[in-house]
Amino acid sequence: MTQEAAQGIAQGAAPEGEGGTVWRRIADELAAAIERGEYRLGDTLPASVALAERYGVHRHTVRQAFRHLADLGLVTVSRGRGTQVTTPRLPYPIGRRVSMRTNMGKLGITGTSRMLSAEIVVGEAPACTALRLKAGTPLWRVRGVSLADGVPMGTGTHWLAVERFPEFDRAYREAAGSITAAFRSYGIADYVRLSTRLAARLADEAEAELLQIAPDSAVMISTAIDALPDLTPIHLVSSVFAGERMEMVIEPFGD
Amino acid sequence: MTQEAAQGIAQGAAPEGEGGTVWRRIADELAAAIERGEYRLGDTLPASVALAERYGVHRHTVRQAFRHLADLGLVTVSRGRGTQVTTPRLPYPIGRRVSMRTNMGKLGITGTSRMLSAEIVVGEAPACTALRLKAGTPLWRVRGVSLADGVPMGTGTHWLAVERFPEFDRAYREAAGSITAAFRSYGIADYVRLSTRLAARLADEAEAELLQIAPDSAVMISTAIDALPDLTPIHLVSSVFAGERMEMVIEPFGD
Repeated sequence: MTQEAAQGIAQGAAPEGEGGTVWRRIADELAAAIERGEYRLGDTLPASVALAERYGVHRHTVRQAFRHLADLGLVTVSRGRGTQVTTPRLPYPIGRRVSMRTNMGKLGITGTSRMLSAEIVVGEAPACTALRLKAGTPLWRVRGVSLADGVPMGTGTHWLAVERFPEFDRAYREAAGSITAAFRSYGIADYVRLSTRLAARLADEAEAELLQIAPDSAVMISTAIDALPDLTPIHLVSSVFAGERMEMVIEPFGD
Repeated sequence: MTQEAAQGIAQGAAPEGEGGTVWRRIADELAAAIERGEYRLGDTLPASVALAERYGVHRHTVRQAFRHLADLGLVTVSRGRGTQVTTPRLPYPIGRRVSMRTNMGKLGITGTSRMLSAEIVVGEAPACTALRLKAGTPLWRVRGVSLADGVPMGTGTHWLAVERFPEFDRAYREAAGSITAAFRSYGIADYVRLSTRLAARLADEAEAELLQIAPDSAVMISTAIDALPDLTPIHLVSSVFAGERMEMVIEPFGD
C-alpha cells in the first residue's frame, strides 16, 4: 500500500473492503495518543460506537483495533468496563530455571507471595504420578498467591513430598513465599524446570476475586514440574495467571 | 484425610468447611462416570444446581469440580451450553522446531491449514523490528487457519520478507498451508524457534466465529519468531488458539 493510500484511509476515505487496513490505522492513532499521554493508565478509551462514527467505519473495525492494542498490552478490553489503558503484560520467562521472584527483581518490580493454605494430603494420584512417587505418598499441598508491586499476578497450588520437605509450610512461610528460597533451606541450591504445560480458559469466581480481575476474564493455566539437576522431579505446581497481566516467554537461545 | 473421612464426604456428610475436599470428590466421581462412558463426547453434565442438591453442597462447590475437570481437559464449561464432555487438549510442543503439522502427525491426527489471505504490506514497523529488517521493508502478511481432524485449532498471521520469499502466497498455497513445507521450497531444510510469547485473552467475535468457539471464550495468543539455524529471524507469526482445544508444552529436556 502506498503512503497516499494510507493517508486516504486515515481520512476516512477507505471503502469497507479496506477494513483490514483501517483498523490498523485506528489502532496506530490510539497507540500514539496513549504514548503522548492523552490517555493515561486506567483511562477508558472512547466507546467503539463513538470511534466508529468518528472514522466512518463499522464498530467491528474499531473493535479489531482495540483487540490489536490489547495484544500489544496497551489496553484491556472488558465488556463491563470498556477499553482501559493498561500496563504491558509482565514477561515471565519459562527457561532452565523458573523463578517469578528473580524475574521480577530483574525488571525492578517487587515480587511478593502470600501463603493461602498448607495441608498434607494423601491419595492425589495425578500429583504422585507427576512427581514419580508411589500412589498414596503423603504430599504437601500448599496454596499461594503471587503479586507484582502489590498487584495479584497468579495463584498456585504446589505439591511436594512430605518426606523430602518436612515442615514445608514453615519453610515456605519463612522464605516469604519464595519457592527458590524455601528449596535453599533444604540444601537445594539449584533446580531445573522439567516441563510446563500452558492453556487458556475463563476464570472462575473465586479466582477472579483473588486475582482482582473481572468475572469471566481469561486466565492462563500452567502445570509445571521442577526437578533436581539430575532431573528427579521434586515440585509440581498448578497455577492460574491473570491473562491480561502476564505473558510467558520461551527463548531457548536467550541465555 | 482418611478413607473413612472421604467416604463420609462422598455421602454428603461433610460440613461446608470441607469444601476443598468435597469438590475434589465430586470431580473424581464425574471423571469416573466419563471414563465409564456414562457421559460421552459432546454430552452435557447435569447442571450445577442439580448436582449441588444431590451432594448437599453449594453450587460453587460443584462449579469448582467442573473447573477441575476442565483443567484436566475432560469438559468444557460455557455459560450458554453448560458443561460438556470434551476431548483432552491437543498438546502442542514448543521445542527447538515448532511445526503443528508434524506434531499432529505424530499423534495420528490429520493437520490441515487453509490460507485466508495473502498481501504485501509496507510499514509494519513492529514486524520489521521482530525480523530485524529496516522499517519499510516489504513483507508478506499471510493469514491462515489450522485444523486438527477438521476442527479449527488456531488462526495465525505470518510475516516474511518479500525479497527472501518471492511469491510466498503461491508457495504457501502449494505447500497446503504448511510453513515447514513452504520453507523447504525455498531451500530451507531446517529452522529453529527463536522465541515464543504466550498470553491469554477473550476471543473477539471474528475469532470466535472462525474457530467455532463460544463468543467470549478464552484464547491463547502467541507471538513467535522462527529463524535459520544461524539464528537469523525469517518468520514472525502471531496466532490465536482455541483455549479449550490446545495446550502448549515446553519440555527442554524432552528430546
